[in-house]
Amino acid sequence: TRKKRQDQPIVKDLQVTLEEIFIGTTKKLKITRKVLNPDGRTTRVEDKILTVDIKPGWKAGTKITFPKEGDQTPNNIPADIVFVIKDKPHPQFTRDASDIRYKVAISLRQALCGTTINVPTIDNRTIPLRLSEVIRPNSIKRIQGEGLPLPKQPSKRGDLIIEFDIKFPSKISSSAKEILADTLPES
Amino acid sequence: TRKKRQDQPIVKDLQVTLEEIFIGTTKKLKITRKVLNPDGRTTRVEDKILTVDIKPGWKAGTKITFPKEGDQTPNNIPADIVFVIKDKPHPQFTRDASDIRYKVAISLRQALCGTTINVPTIDNRTIPLRLSEVIRPNSIKRIQGEGLPLPKQPSKRGDLIIEFDIKFPSKISSSAKEILADTLPES
Repeated sequence: TRKKRQDQPIVKDLQVTLEEIFIGTTKKLKITRKVLNPDGRTTRVEDKILTVDIKPGWKAGTKITFPKEGDQTPNNIPADIVFVIKDKPHPQFTRDASDIRYKVAISLRQALCGTTINVPTIDNRTIPLRLSEVIRPNSIKRIQGEGLPLPKQPSKRGDLIIEFDIKFPSKISSSAKEILADTLPES
Repeated sequence: TRKKRQDQPIVKDLQVTLEEIFIGTTKKLKITRKVLNPDGRTTRVEDKILTVDIKPGWKAGTKITFPKEGDQTPNNIPADIVFVIKDKPHPQFTRDASDIRYKVAISLRQALCGTTINVPTIDNRTIPLRLSEVIRPNSIKRIQGEGLPLPKQPSKRGDLIIEFDIKFPSKISSSAKEILADTLPES
Protein backbone atom coordinates (compact mmCIF):
# COMPACT_ATOMS: atom_id res chain seq x y z
CA THR A 1 0.00 0.00 0.00
CA ARG A 2 1.35 3.37 -1.05
CA LYS A 3 1.49 6.07 1.56
CA LYS A 4 -1.24 8.63 1.01
CA ARG A 5 -0.10 12.19 0.41
CA GLN A 6 -2.01 15.29 1.48
CA ASP A 7 -3.22 17.64 -1.25
CA GLN A 8 -1.79 21.17 -1.31
CA PRO A 9 -3.65 23.60 0.98
CA ILE A 10 -6.49 25.59 -0.58
CA VAL A 11 -5.94 29.25 0.35
CA LYS A 12 -8.78 31.76 0.14
CA ASP A 13 -8.91 35.46 0.96
CA LEU A 14 -11.48 36.56 3.51
CA GLN A 15 -12.36 40.25 3.16
CA VAL A 16 -13.28 41.92 6.43
CA THR A 17 -14.33 45.53 7.03
CA LEU A 18 -12.61 47.68 9.63
CA GLU A 19 -15.91 47.86 11.51
CA GLU A 20 -15.97 44.05 11.68
CA ILE A 21 -12.37 43.99 12.90
CA PHE A 22 -13.30 46.59 15.49
CA ILE A 23 -16.09 44.61 17.18
CA GLY A 24 -15.22 41.11 15.98
CA THR A 25 -17.56 39.03 13.83
CA THR A 26 -18.50 35.54 12.75
CA LYS A 27 -18.28 34.62 9.08
CA LYS A 28 -20.09 31.58 7.71
CA LEU A 29 -18.48 30.34 4.53
CA LYS A 30 -20.02 27.71 2.30
CA ILE A 31 -17.65 25.26 0.66
CA THR A 32 -18.52 22.56 -1.86
CA ARG A 33 -16.43 19.41 -1.66
CA LYS A 34 -16.29 15.80 -2.79
CA VAL A 35 -16.94 13.36 0.04
CA LEU A 36 -16.08 9.67 -0.06
CA ASN A 37 -19.07 7.30 0.14
CA PRO A 38 -19.04 4.42 2.68
CA ASP A 39 -17.86 2.08 -0.11
CA GLY A 40 -14.52 3.89 -0.02
CA ARG A 41 -14.39 4.20 -3.82
CA THR A 42 -17.18 6.46 -5.07
CA THR A 43 -17.72 10.08 -4.04
CA ARG A 44 -20.62 12.51 -3.76
CA VAL A 45 -20.66 16.31 -3.73
CA GLU A 46 -21.58 18.01 -0.48
CA ASP A 47 -21.96 21.56 0.74
CA LYS A 48 -20.55 22.44 4.12
CA ILE A 49 -20.54 25.60 6.19
CA LEU A 50 -17.26 26.59 7.81
CA THR A 51 -17.53 29.10 10.63
CA VAL A 52 -14.73 31.61 11.16
CA ASP A 53 -14.80 33.46 14.44
CA ILE A 54 -12.95 36.74 13.87
CA LYS A 55 -11.71 38.28 17.08
CA PRO A 56 -11.53 42.05 17.61
CA GLY A 57 -8.30 43.53 16.31
CA TRP A 58 -7.15 40.60 14.20
CA LYS A 59 -4.50 41.69 11.76
CA ALA A 60 -4.68 41.40 8.00
CA GLY A 61 -2.77 38.26 7.06
CA THR A 62 -4.11 36.23 10.00
CA LYS A 63 -4.66 32.64 8.81
CA ILE A 64 -7.42 30.31 9.93
CA THR A 65 -6.94 26.66 8.93
CA PHE A 66 -9.65 24.02 8.62
CA PRO A 67 -7.76 20.73 8.44
CA LYS A 68 -8.62 18.20 5.74
CA GLU A 69 -11.73 19.98 4.44
CA GLY A 70 -10.73 19.63 0.77
CA ASP A 71 -12.01 17.00 -1.67
CA GLN A 72 -11.94 13.40 -0.49
CA THR A 73 -10.87 10.71 -2.96
CA PRO A 74 -9.88 7.08 -2.39
CA ASN A 75 -6.20 7.94 -2.75
CA ASN A 76 -5.60 11.23 -0.99
CA ILE A 77 -5.50 12.98 2.31
CA PRO A 78 -7.84 15.95 1.76
CA ALA A 79 -6.30 19.41 1.58
CA ASP A 80 -6.47 21.87 4.44
CA ILE A 81 -8.60 24.92 3.71
CA VAL A 82 -6.92 28.15 4.82
CA PHE A 83 -8.62 31.52 5.06
CA VAL A 84 -6.45 34.65 5.10
CA ILE A 85 -7.89 37.82 6.62
CA LYS A 86 -7.75 40.80 4.23
CA ASP A 87 -8.79 44.37 4.97
CA LYS A 88 -11.69 45.48 2.83
CA PRO A 89 -10.93 49.06 1.65
CA HIS A 90 -12.77 51.60 3.79
CA PRO A 91 -14.07 54.89 2.37
CA GLN A 92 -12.63 57.00 5.20
CA PHE A 93 -10.09 55.01 7.14
CA THR A 94 -7.04 52.93 6.54
CA ARG A 95 -5.48 50.62 9.05
CA ASP A 96 -1.93 50.86 10.32
CA ALA A 97 -1.40 47.89 12.66
CA SER A 98 -3.75 48.72 15.56
CA ASP A 99 -3.99 52.38 14.61
CA ILE A 100 -6.58 53.80 12.26
CA ARG A 101 -5.56 56.54 9.84
CA TYR A 102 -7.91 59.27 8.71
CA LYS A 103 -6.89 61.78 6.06
CA VAL A 104 -8.56 65.18 6.07
CA ALA A 105 -8.24 67.96 3.52
CA ILE A 106 -7.81 71.45 4.98
CA SER A 107 -7.08 74.71 3.23
CA LEU A 108 -3.75 76.47 3.59
CA ARG A 109 -5.64 79.21 5.39
CA GLN A 110 -6.95 76.71 7.92
CA ALA A 111 -3.47 75.20 8.28
CA LEU A 112 -1.96 78.61 9.07
CA CYS A 113 -4.76 80.44 10.88
CA GLY A 114 -6.38 77.56 12.75
CA THR A 115 -9.70 75.76 12.49
CA THR A 116 -11.78 73.03 14.08
CA ILE A 117 -12.24 69.78 12.22
CA ASN A 118 -14.76 67.05 12.96
CA VAL A 119 -13.05 63.69 13.10
CA PRO A 120 -15.22 60.62 12.51
CA THR A 121 -14.55 57.51 14.61
CA ILE A 122 -14.84 53.82 13.71
CA ASP A 123 -17.90 53.55 15.99
CA ASN A 124 -19.72 56.39 14.28
CA ARG A 125 -19.09 59.21 16.69
CA THR A 126 -17.57 62.57 15.80
CA ILE A 127 -14.74 64.13 17.74
CA PRO A 128 -14.19 67.88 17.27
CA LEU A 129 -10.49 68.66 17.06
CA ARG A 130 -9.33 72.23 17.50
CA LEU A 131 -6.23 73.11 15.46
CA SER A 132 -4.66 76.22 16.90
CA GLU A 133 -0.99 75.85 16.00
CA VAL A 134 0.36 75.78 12.43
CA ILE A 135 -0.30 72.48 10.63
CA ARG A 136 2.63 71.47 8.42
CA PRO A 137 2.59 69.18 5.39
CA ASN A 138 2.89 65.54 6.47
CA SER A 139 2.21 66.36 10.11
CA ILE A 140 -0.20 64.15 12.04
CA LYS A 141 -2.39 64.38 15.09
CA ARG A 142 -3.12 61.43 17.29
CA ILE A 143 -6.31 60.77 19.23
CA GLN A 144 -5.40 58.08 21.72
CA GLY A 145 -7.52 55.00 22.22
CA GLU A 146 -9.73 55.53 19.15
CA GLY A 147 -8.00 52.87 17.06
CA LEU A 148 -8.57 49.12 16.85
CA PRO A 149 -8.39 46.72 19.78
CA LEU A 150 -4.95 45.21 20.30
CA PRO A 151 -5.29 41.59 19.14
CA LYS A 152 -3.58 40.17 22.23
CA GLN A 153 -5.14 42.63 24.68
CA PRO A 154 -8.54 43.61 23.24
CA SER A 155 -9.41 45.87 26.17
CA LYS A 156 -6.70 48.27 24.95
CA ARG A 157 -6.96 50.14 21.70
CA GLY A 158 -4.63 51.80 19.21
CA ASP A 159 -4.92 55.42 18.15
CA LEU A 160 -6.79 57.36 15.53
CA ILE A 161 -4.15 59.15 13.47
CA ILE A 162 -5.21 62.24 11.56
CA GLU A 163 -3.23 63.13 8.46
CA PHE A 164 -3.59 66.49 6.78
CA ASP A 165 -3.80 67.13 3.09
CA ILE A 166 -3.16 70.87 2.87
CA LYS A 167 -4.82 72.39 -0.16
CA PHE A 168 -2.88 75.31 -1.57
CA PRO A 169 -4.64 77.97 -3.65
CA SER A 170 -3.98 77.29 -7.32
CA LYS A 171 -3.36 80.94 -8.14
CA ILE A 172 -2.46 83.96 -6.07
CA SER A 173 -2.84 87.50 -7.37
CA SER A 174 0.19 89.79 -7.49
CA SER A 175 -1.29 92.02 -4.82
CA ALA A 176 -1.93 89.05 -2.53
CA LYS A 177 1.62 87.83 -3.19
CA GLU A 178 2.95 91.18 -2.02
CA ILE A 179 0.97 90.97 1.20
CA LEU A 180 2.05 87.37 1.78
CA ALA A 181 5.68 88.20 1.15
CA ASP A 182 5.41 90.94 3.78
CA THR A 183 3.60 88.73 6.28
CA LEU A 184 5.35 85.36 6.03
CA PRO A 185 8.88 84.88 7.38
CA GLU A 186 11.70 84.63 4.86
CA SER A 187 12.59 81.06 5.82
CA THR B 1 33.48 8.00 -9.92
CA ARG B 2 30.90 10.29 -8.28
CA LYS B 3 29.61 13.17 -10.32
CA LYS B 4 31.06 16.47 -9.08
CA ARG B 5 28.61 19.07 -7.86
CA GLN B 6 29.08 22.80 -8.16
CA ASP B 7 29.33 24.84 -4.96
CA GLN B 8 26.61 27.41 -4.24
CA PRO B 9 27.27 30.78 -5.89
CA ILE B 10 29.11 33.39 -3.82
CA VAL B 11 27.10 36.61 -4.01
CA LYS B 12 28.71 39.96 -3.16
CA ASP B 13 27.30 43.48 -3.20
CA LEU B 14 29.10 46.00 -5.36
CA GLN B 15 28.45 49.57 -4.23
CA VAL B 16 28.47 52.09 -7.04
CA THR B 17 27.96 55.85 -6.85
CA LEU B 18 25.42 57.62 -9.03
CA GLU B 19 28.28 59.48 -10.70
CA GLU B 20 29.85 56.13 -11.63
CA ILE B 21 26.52 54.89 -12.99
CA PHE B 22 26.22 58.10 -14.95
CA ILE B 23 29.48 57.79 -16.88
CA GLY B 24 30.13 54.08 -16.48
CA THR B 25 33.20 52.74 -14.69
CA THR B 26 35.51 49.79 -14.32
CA LYS B 27 35.86 48.15 -10.92
CA LYS B 28 38.77 45.89 -10.12
CA LEU B 29 37.97 43.49 -7.32
CA LYS B 30 40.52 41.30 -5.62
CA ILE B 31 39.42 37.84 -4.60
CA THR B 32 41.40 35.27 -2.66
CA ARG B 33 40.75 31.66 -3.60
CA LYS B 34 42.10 28.16 -3.22
CA VAL B 35 43.57 26.81 -6.45
CA LEU B 36 44.28 23.15 -7.15
CA ASN B 37 47.95 22.27 -7.69
CA PRO B 38 49.01 20.21 -10.74
CA ASP B 39 48.98 17.08 -8.55
CA GLY B 40 45.18 17.36 -8.43
CA ARG B 41 45.08 16.81 -4.66
CA THR B 42 46.75 19.71 -2.85
CA THR B 43 45.77 23.37 -3.09
CA ARG B 44 47.44 26.74 -2.75
CA VAL B 45 45.95 30.16 -2.01
CA GLU B 46 45.98 32.70 -4.81
CA ASP B 47 44.83 36.28 -5.27
CA LYS B 48 43.05 37.19 -8.45
CA ILE B 49 41.67 40.43 -9.83
CA LEU B 50 38.19 40.32 -11.35
CA THR B 51 37.31 43.25 -13.60
CA VAL B 52 33.72 44.45 -13.71
CA ASP B 53 32.89 46.78 -16.55
CA ILE B 54 29.90 48.85 -15.39
CA LYS B 55 28.01 50.38 -18.27
CA PRO B 56 26.31 53.78 -18.03
CA GLY B 57 22.81 53.55 -16.59
CA TRP B 58 23.04 50.04 -15.18
CA LYS B 59 20.27 49.45 -12.65
CA ALA B 60 20.74 48.48 -9.05
CA GLY B 61 20.28 44.72 -8.85
CA THR B 62 22.19 44.06 -12.07
CA LYS B 63 24.20 40.86 -11.62
CA ILE B 64 27.60 40.09 -13.07
CA THR B 65 28.68 36.45 -12.87
CA PHE B 66 32.23 35.13 -12.97
CA PRO B 67 31.83 31.40 -13.57
CA LYS B 68 33.77 28.94 -11.40
CA GLU B 69 35.95 31.51 -9.65
CA GLY B 70 35.34 30.05 -6.17
CA ASP B 71 37.65 27.73 -4.27
CA GLN B 72 38.99 24.72 -6.15
CA THR B 73 39.20 21.38 -4.32
CA PRO B 74 39.75 17.87 -5.66
CA ASN B 75 36.06 17.07 -5.32
CA ASN B 76 34.09 20.14 -6.37
CA ILE B 77 33.16 22.33 -9.26
CA PRO B 78 34.13 25.82 -8.01
CA ALA B 79 31.33 28.24 -7.20
CA ASP B 80 30.37 31.09 -9.50
CA ILE B 81 31.13 34.52 -8.06
CA VAL B 82 28.26 36.93 -8.56
CA PHE B 83 28.44 40.68 -8.01
CA VAL B 84 25.21 42.60 -7.52
CA ILE B 85 25.17 46.31 -8.29
CA LYS B 86 23.94 48.44 -5.36
CA ASP B 87 23.45 52.19 -5.30
CA LYS B 88 25.74 53.91 -2.86
CA PRO B 89 23.69 56.54 -1.00
CA HIS B 90 24.26 59.97 -2.49
CA PRO B 91 24.23 63.16 -0.37
CA GLN B 92 21.93 65.04 -2.78
CA PHE B 93 20.31 62.64 -5.18
CA THR B 94 18.36 59.44 -5.15
CA ARG B 95 17.74 57.26 -8.13
CA ASP B 96 14.32 56.33 -9.47
CA ALA B 97 14.90 53.94 -12.39
CA SER B 98 16.61 56.20 -14.94
CA ASP B 99 15.41 59.39 -13.27
CA ILE B 100 17.34 61.20 -10.58
CA ARG B 101 15.43 62.76 -7.69
CA TYR B 102 16.55 65.91 -5.94
CA LYS B 103 14.73 67.21 -2.87
CA VAL B 104 14.93 70.91 -2.13
CA ALA B 105 13.64 72.76 0.92
CA ILE B 106 11.82 76.01 0.21
CA SER B 107 9.96 78.29 2.56
CA LEU B 108 6.19 78.64 2.43
CA ARG B 109 6.77 82.19 1.32
CA GLN B 110 8.85 81.00 -1.63
CA ALA B 111 6.23 78.36 -2.45
CA LEU B 112 3.48 80.99 -2.57
CA CYS B 113 5.24 84.09 -3.85
CA GLY B 114 7.76 82.52 -6.21
CA THR B 115 11.53 82.17 -6.18
CA THR B 116 14.44 80.86 -8.22
CA ILE B 117 16.22 77.75 -7.06
CA ASN B 118 19.57 76.44 -8.23
CA VAL B 119 19.31 72.78 -9.11
CA PRO B 120 22.56 70.78 -9.08
CA THR B 121 23.07 68.16 -11.78
CA ILE B 122 24.85 64.80 -11.66
CA ASP B 123 27.63 66.23 -13.84
CA ASN B 124 28.28 69.15 -11.51
CA ARG B 125 26.47 71.91 -13.32
CA THR B 126 23.78 74.12 -11.80
CA ILE B 127 20.46 74.79 -13.51
CA PRO B 128 18.53 77.84 -12.31
CA LEU B 129 14.82 77.04 -12.07
CA ARG B 130 12.35 79.87 -11.82
CA LEU B 131 9.26 79.02 -9.77
CA SER B 132 6.53 81.50 -10.61
CA GLU B 133 3.35 79.53 -9.95
CA VAL B 134 2.31 78.22 -6.53
CA ILE B 135 4.28 75.14 -5.40
CA ARG B 136 2.09 72.65 -3.56
CA PRO B 137 3.16 69.99 -1.10
CA ASN B 138 4.25 66.83 -2.90
CA SER B 139 4.39 68.56 -6.26
CA ILE B 140 7.39 67.92 -8.50
CA LYS B 141 9.19 69.62 -11.37
CA ARG B 142 10.93 67.69 -14.08
CA ILE B 143 14.02 68.76 -16.00
CA GLN B 144 14.12 66.49 -19.02
CA GLY B 145 17.27 64.68 -20.04
CA GLU B 146 19.22 65.40 -16.84
CA GLY B 147 18.78 61.92 -15.39
CA LEU B 148 20.81 58.75 -15.94
CA PRO B 149 21.47 57.11 -19.32
CA LEU B 150 18.89 54.51 -20.26
CA PRO B 151 20.70 51.18 -19.84
CA LYS B 152 19.54 49.87 -23.23
CA GLN B 153 19.87 53.17 -25.06
CA PRO B 154 22.67 55.11 -23.34
CA SER B 155 22.41 58.07 -25.70
CA LYS B 156 19.05 58.88 -24.13
CA ARG B 157 18.70 60.02 -20.55
CA GLY B 158 16.01 60.05 -17.87
CA ASP B 159 14.90 63.20 -16.08
CA LEU B 160 15.97 65.14 -13.04
CA ILE B 161 12.94 65.28 -10.77
CA ILE B 162 12.77 68.07 -8.23
CA GLU B 163 10.74 67.46 -5.08
CA PHE B 164 9.82 70.27 -2.74
CA ASP B 165 9.92 70.19 1.01
CA ILE B 166 7.87 73.24 1.95
CA LYS B 167 8.93 74.63 5.31
CA PHE B 168 6.06 76.20 7.20
CA PRO B 169 6.72 78.84 9.85
CA SER B 170 6.54 77.21 13.27
CA LYS B 171 4.56 80.08 14.81
CA ILE B 172 2.48 82.87 13.37
CA SER B 173 1.49 85.93 15.40
CA SER B 174 -2.19 86.76 15.85
CA SER B 175 -1.83 89.90 13.76
CA ALA B 176 -0.17 87.96 10.93
CA LYS B 177 -2.93 85.34 11.19
CA GLU B 178 -5.51 88.05 10.65
CA ILE B 179 -3.74 89.31 7.55
CA LEU B 180 -3.33 85.77 6.19
CA ALA B 181 -6.98 84.96 6.83
CA ASP B 182 -7.92 88.07 4.83
CA THR B 183 -5.50 87.32 2.02
CA LEU B 184 -5.77 83.55 1.50
CA PRO B 185 -8.90 82.02 -0.06
CA GLU B 186 -11.28 80.18 2.23
CA SER B 187 -10.76 76.85 0.50
